[in-house]
Amino acid sequence: MSFNSFGHLFRVTTWGESHGPALGCVIDGCPPRLPVSEALIQSFLDRRKPGQSRFTTQRREPDQVRILSGVMTDEATGTLVTTGTPISLMIENVDQRSKDYGEIKDRYRPGHADYAYDIKYGIRDYRGGGRSSARETAARVAAGAIARQVVPGLVVRGALVQMGPHRIDRGNWDWDEVANNPFFCPDAKAAAVFETYLDGVRKAGSSIGAVIEVVAEGVPPGLGAPVYGKLDADLAAAMMSINAVKGVEIGDGFAAAELSGESNADEMRMGNDGRLLFLSNHAGGILGGISTGQPVVCRFAVKPTSSILQPRRTVDRHGHDTEIVTKGRHDPCVGIRAVPVGEAMMACVIADHFLRHRGQTGAPLAWPFQA
Amino acid sequence: MSFNSFGHLFRVTTWGESHGPALGCVIDGCPPRLPVSEALIQSFLDRRKPGQSRFTTQRREPDQVRILSGVMTDEATGTLVTTGTPISLMIENVDQRSKDYGEIKDRYRPGHADYAYDIKYGIRDYRGGGRSSARETAARVAAGAIARQVVPGLVVRGALVQMGPHRIDRGNWDWDEVANNPFFCPDAKAAAVFETYLDGVRKAGSSIGAVIEVVAEGVPPGLGAPVYGKLDADLAAAMMSINAVKGVEIGDGFAAAELSGESNADEMRMGNDGRLLFLSNHAGGILGGISTGQPVVCRFAVKPTSSILQPRRTVDRHGHDTEIVTKGRHDPCVGIRAVPVGEAMMACVIADHFLRHRGQTGAPLAWPFQA
Amino acid sequence: MSFNSFGHLFRVTTWGESHGPALGCVIDGCPPRLPVSEALIQSFLDRRKPGQSRFTTQRREPDQVRILSGVMTDEATGTLVTTGTPISLMIENVDQRSKDYGEIKDRYRPGHADYAYDIKYGIRDYRGGGRSSARETAARVAAGAIARQVVPGLVVRGALVQMGPHRIDRGNWDWDEVANNPFFCPDAKAAAVFETYLDGVRKAGSSIGAVIEVVAEGVPPGLGAPVYGKLDADLAAAMMSINAVKGVEIGDGFAAAELSGESNADEMRMGNDGRLLFLSNHAGGILGGISTGQPVVCRFAVKPTSSILQPRRTVDRHGHDTEIVTKGRHDPCVGIRAVPVGEAMMACVIADHFLRHRGQTGAPLAWPFQA
Amino acid sequence: MSFNSFGHLFRVTTWGESHGPALGCVIDGCPPRLPVSEALIQSFLDRRKPGQSRFTTQRREPDQVRILSGVMTDEATGTLVTTGTPISLMIENVDQRSKDYGEIKDRYRPGHADYAYDIKYGIRDYRGGGRSSARETAARVAAGAIARQVVPGLVVRGALVQMGPHRIDRGNWDWDEVANNPFFCPDAKAAAVFETYLDGVRKAGSSIGAVIEVVAEGVPPGLGAPVYGKLDADLAAAMMSINAVKGVEIGDGFAAAELSGESNADEMRMGNDGRLLFLSNHAGGILGGISTGQPVVCRFAVKPTSSILQPRRTVDRHGHDTEIVTKGRHDPCVGIRAVPVGEAMMACVIADHFLRHRGQTGAPLAWPFQA
Repeated sequence: MSFNSFGHLFRVTTWGESHGPALGCVIDGCPPRLPVSEALIQSFLDRRKPGQSRFTTQRREPDQVRILSGVMTDEATGTLVTTGTPISLMIENVDQRSKDYGEIKDRYRPGHADYAYDIKYGIRDYRGGGRSSARETAARVAAGAIARQVVPGLVVRGALVQMGPHRIDRGNWDWDEVANNPFFCPDAKAAAVFETYLDGVRKAGSSIGAVIEVVAEGVPPGLGAPVYGKLDADLAAAMMSINAVKGVEIGDGFAAAELSGESNADEMRMGNDGRLLFLSNHAGGILGGISTGQPVVCRFAVKPTSSILQPRRTVDRHGHDTEIVTKGRHDPCVGIRAVPVGEAMMACVIADHFLRHRGQTGAPLAWPFQA
Repeated sequence: MSFNSFGHLFRVTTWGESHGPALGCVIDGCPPRLPVSEALIQSFLDRRKPGQSRFTTQRREPDQVRILSGVMTDEATGTLVTTGTPISLMIENVDQRSKDYGEIKDRYRPGHADYAYDIKYGIRDYRGGGRSSARETAARVAAGAIARQVVPGLVVRGALVQMGPHRIDRGNWDWDEVANNPFFCPDAKAAAVFETYLDGVRKAGSSIGAVIEVVAEGVPPGLGAPVYGKLDADLAAAMMSINAVKGVEIGDGFAAAELSGESNADEMRMGNDGRLLFLSNHAGGILGGISTGQPVVCRFAVKPTSSILQPRRTVDRHGHDTEIVTKGRHDPCVGIRAVPVGEAMMACVIADHFLRHRGQTGAPLAWPFQA
Repeated sequence: MSFNSFGHLFRVTTWGESHGPALGCVIDGCPPRLPVSEALIQSFLDRRKPGQSRFTTQRREPDQVRILSGVMTDEATGTLVTTGTPISLMIENVDQRSKDYGEIKDRYRPGHADYAYDIKYGIRDYRGGGRSSARETAARVAAGAIARQVVPGLVVRGALVQMGPHRIDRGNWDWDEVANNPFFCPDAKAAAVFETYLDGVRKAGSSIGAVIEVVAEGVPPGLGAPVYGKLDADLAAAMMSINAVKGVEIGDGFAAAELSGESNADEMRMGNDGRLLFLSNHAGGILGGISTGQPVVCRFAVKPTSSILQPRRTVDRHGHDTEIVTKGRHDPCVGIRAVPVGEAMMACVIADHFLRHRGQTGAPLAWPFQA
Repeated sequence: MSFNSFGHLFRVTTWGESHGPALGCVIDGCPPRLPVSEALIQSFLDRRKPGQSRFTTQRREPDQVRILSGVMTDEATGTLVTTGTPISLMIENVDQRSKDYGEIKDRYRPGHADYAYDIKYGIRDYRGGGRSSARETAARVAAGAIARQVVPGLVVRGALVQMGPHRIDRGNWDWDEVANNPFFCPDAKAAAVFETYLDGVRKAGSSIGAVIEVVAEGVPPGLGAPVYGKLDADLAAAMMSINAVKGVEIGDGFAAAELSGESNADEMRMGNDGRLLFLSNHAGGILGGISTGQPVVCRFAVKPTSSILQPRRTVDRHGHDTEIVTKGRHDPCVGIRAVPVGEAMMACVIADHFLRHRGQTGAPLAWPFQA
């Protein structure tokens, strides 16, 4: 993870600002002959697209993706496939309203990257947050759509499991429910609670944080390169790189601090099919930084949007005390749209480690080796 | 973070197994003419060294470091300094008892990396965990000692803030207390609780998790390279790469999910000295992935040691159900010795970003730019 | 240099095929507040642009560049400047004639990348060579225009010094002459010879190789990171990565093999201005992989275009012997347009090392240090 | 290639100075379960070892290698094999005579890295050249021994093909001859010429340059990652990173500048065994940056040793004009011992690309794909 690229063999570089002409990414190292299409990528972008309910920003962006390179029609099948060369994706910005941002041009929003960019670069694109805007995450979702094609059998799904003080009931978890509400919430009852709660937050001109959980199934065992390319270390960086994320957990996460060794141990037995079974998954599918074949479970916490209508004390670029109210169009709970972004990052990290593992060790091994 | 290296300009590569002849690291890209010495490095290694109380492994390792390259006596001052070339550090293993590990040679410890290494590589150094052993962290601590020299005025300190169900009282926080107990605990009263509690855990042949907090003061503003080289993303990867870590938080971390936008906002005022002041630090010193000049605050959760005397169900390499009890010599709370390791990782990440920021932008900027 | 990116702190990723909708690059890590503009970049692209004389391909590409991100108007000066975020550049392809390539769709051009791509990826974009086309170098030239802004006082110039058997007379070298002929030739007499010679080659449906020399003046001393980031090692990779390049030399290059130690030694004296002077430059400005402050001199050899009208024996994708004649529109001497490409690569490598050196050591040092 | 590391998946980091206690390397990313041993590595080190004839430095270094990590006895076979974790190799320096270097402590040898290191770092290890010494190449040779194990069927051999003005007769090329003379010369007659010639050079207190050719056979087709990870680009960087190298060629190299398109074309036919045959190898086994299955041919030019007994004009660290004569113990033709080093670099680059190709595309493909 360096500047605006992440991954080693499956390597994604994103570019673009909130209010520039476009944003996009270049995906380098993608295996050849994988089916991809604009429609496939679009289906994921549409899940993250703004303006789909009253609970996300009212900016109207179609987020229409164009594939500019790296694909070709396979004449044998008539399918568009990757060629192994860099895949360039572009999404044009169409609904910029830069005038909305005049008032934050010289004032730093508390909790936002405004001041940090100014002190780092000596210049800052104040229009919609520029590069620090969550619009950048559209490029991640596009890359994630391609990453999902890399690992056969991989399924990556995410859900909102907490909004402010309200947590879902894990007993009610139903993946099918996620598409039935505007919160990506897997618990229908909790979704109703979220709705009422977030309406209140929104009307108060406030915002609220959230927790997202992403689960990857079908992850081949053996992925992850100890000790500084551990699968969980790369996942932690990937999730923490998403706008507004302040915490990341794998498996039991912080709850593991309260466990005894015997409670934390995921015991093993041989299954009837000759495959090794884990009897629990406190580890979240990763031991020693390497995937075990169990579902990989990752959670991350998103802080509340810092652009709010509530006035806050701040300073301006000229060193004067002042106050700020951010009008613009913002998500009252930026964590909601982080769900497809978290999925995309999970898919990208796993795709990268899949290729790295295949590179170092050859085809994935079967266990037991002595058999 | 790739395989066994981390960092870009300040780049550390570690090597070595628990029961091999030695372990060590190569530090590449260190600025020239910084004072270093074996004594300086040793002072940090001694804090992590095993066998110093009944609460850590009884393995007796002096952890004596040797500098093999990259330094030279500066004839003007008589001081040993870096030359800008790679610094190779080596620590010999002296107290290996490989026979202790015969019983885990063919059996996978639940919660340990045993099975994962086997399925990844088809071979595994079972002696003391080989490369997955926490002995590798000695090399990190050595590298961290040099990293601390890179950033003028940087102070990095860590503390144990939770052991199992017991949390410190933050009102009692006293950094001076950290050296007064075997737990790196900043709250003398909590240390007494930890002592009694951990004696019970140890005698039961069990183990317990913990939470560590690391704070860096004197971090220049502007460090961190959005959007995939964010300072917090690199910190998250660095901490998650430490053995047994399952969660990482920056600033308020998961608690931020429950905050409203106005509570989370770290408001700003101009100080009498013409410097910008933050009125709170929910952000943990990082906004938009860039340091703000406030203290950088990071917490991480460590799961309980998986090598325990309590019998657990498992399978062996040959695919048979069996049971395991791990004798050897192990830490009942591996989180304790993770404190100096967490400090070292924080120092390395900040040193790396300090050099990267200086590279991209020249000397650190002063604010305000318009002044 | 990894897949489609090069550089570490000044990092360029290129994308695009000869006959796709567009090509471009993302420049990551560029320092902030440098003046750039589409006009500036265009001035360099126009030097490489095809179809400007009968000696280059007749494909009509305006090579119009668009800046899609990473810049902003500095309100203090009204100038467009970099912001420190990734700069995305795009050039649309407008004069594709894919039907020209039907005949090479299944046949491998000898000396071309056709077969190699097929065996690597199992699929190949045959239209104009796809990713292996020299059109990719337009993106390099665009990146080079920005790289030139990074190092104050840097001047990078290139020239064609040999075409087939004809070499320039170094006594006639005149940089101003380079713009006066379609060959970038610094020797007016040699340019006349090249003209007649290349007309013959072109009419015969053949092609010919060339040698290019690139010289960088104003390179600060101290650039280059021994031992695997040597300035000359990175230049060698950069030049060898240009299409059709088969050899690279620094300073005296292969001629150094015939020199004695005393002839090769670039002796030194103190100048009247208190600066160190070199009395010769056999080293080409680089010693031990580090720039010395002398001009950096690099030459590279370009093989003849492999797409020719002369019939050659080959095989097709189905494993049958056949013959091939390449019609399309091709440069009879691809070395000519490699001149601005070589300049761009030199500028990019120096910019990258300038930032890396500044990162590791702080501001460039003054010599002597004891003064 | 970054600072002191090279390679991506097969990644080598070297460390150590000429007159420090030791030098060595860490090899990261090596596949598991490959047989290695100190004896295997030693067999390659012994070919490079100094003091074996009157034509190399008289420094007496046994260059005894120790494996410190990353290997284990495979209990099934009793063989020492790699485990997939980092392999640390160390060679102790035993014959330092630092006093020899007192006279160059403050004076810069023309043609040497002395001045460049001083101006880069502000400090320089003058003892034997410190990090710029060719002793560093022992670590490369050790790494190369392991790289050779990575690619099944790979054979890498090098030879000295030119010394000063004397070239071998390619018609006399006999690989078996290489071990029969102290020059790694494949032409017995030329070896005799070299011997007389170099005796003269040595007695005159002078030195001379050379050209080395390295040939890799058994390179699988498809290796190399266009466009900035081209196999030839990485080879060029690898060879140029060797001490004193000033030029690199692939295949016909600079001679390609004089070829017509039809002469340069390596025509193809189907062989009786159903495999594609090239009728020539002007390309040196690489097209479009990708290996074709033909032998990979690389040449590089080495300048004469800059440490000579002939007095040269120079300046000292204090900015005074002076003169220098380098006594110490030096190779009159440093190109000789560069032969095993060039082989090692070739092996490392191919091993790295083998793993990268396997990572991106899976198992090497068979051609033709339509069959």
